[in-house]
Amino acid sequence: MSEQWIEQVKWDEKGLVPAIAQDHISGRILMVAWMNEEALRLTVEEGRGIYWSRSRNRLWRKGEESGHVQKLHEIRLDCDADVVLLSVEQLGGIACHTGRESCFYRVLNDKHEWETVDEVQRDPNQIYANKD
Amino acid sequence: MSEQWIEQVKWDEKGLVPAIAQDHISGRILMVAWMNEEALRLTVEEGRGIYWSRSRNRLWRKGEESGHVQKLHEIRLDCDADVVLLSVEQLGGIACHTGRESCFYRVLNDKHEWETVDEVQRDPNQIYANKD
Repeated sequence: MSEQWIEQVKWDEKGLVPAIAQDHISGRILMVAWMNEEALRLTVEEGRGIYWSRSRNRLWRKGEESGHVQKLHEIRLDCDADVVLLSVEQLGGIACHTGRESCFYRVLNDKHEWETVDEVQRDPNQIYANKD
Repeated sequence: MSEQWIEQVKWDEKGLVPAIAQDHISGRILMVAWMNEEALRLTVEEGRGIYWSRSRNRLWRKGEESGHVQKLHEIRLDCDADVVLLSVEQLGGIACHTGRESCFYRVLNDKHEWETVDEVQRDPNQIYANKD
C-alpha cells in the first residue's frame, strides 16, 4: 500500500501534527493530542485513536489503560495538511484523564476566569485503578 | 483587569497555542490556527477570532480581508491548558481560504487518498479581490 497519504501530511519540525478527536454524533470536541507518522498509520490500520505522547515519548493507544478507546469513524486533513481531525466513537463516554467527557471543560467567564463547567463522570482513581 | 487567565495558558516554546474554531450551532470544526498572548487577549476583548499568523509573522484578524469574521460565542481551555477552543459564528459561512466552509474538506477514503468531499462555496478570487 502506498504511503503517499502519510507523506502528504506536513509534519512539523518534530515530526508531529495536532490531532483533534471529535464525537461522531454530538460533534463535541473531546481532546487534542499529537500524532507522528506511525501513530497516524496505526490509527487508520487499527481503526482507533492512537497518538504520540510528548510527555512519555512513546506511542499511546488511547484507552490502553482506561478502556476508553476511540473507535475511528472518519479522518480528515485540513487545507494546510498540518492538522488531522478524527471523528470517533468514544467508548465509555470519557475522553479526559480527569474523568470528564471532554478535555475542554473550562470556559472563560465574564470575570476572566477559566471556570469548570462540566462534571466529572467517573473518578480518575477508578478509571486508572490498574495503572500501577 | 488581571491577566491571570492569560498566564494560566501553557504557551509553547514559541509562545503559541493551537486554537480551534468550531461553529457554535452545527459543531463543525472550521479551522485550526495559532494564538500568542496578544491574539488571545484581543480575541476576548474584540469578541472575534484573532490569530497569530506563523507564515506572515503578524496578528491576523480573521476576516480582515475576506469579511469572513468569526464572532466569538465562547472560549474554552483544555485540561493541559495548551489548546483553546473557540465557539464562533462564522460570518459568510466560509472559514477556509479555498472558499469552503471548513478547512477540513478532505477525507481519507478506502483507497488511502485524501479525497476532497466539500464544495467550494465561493471563488477565492472573489473573496480576496480587494487583496492587491
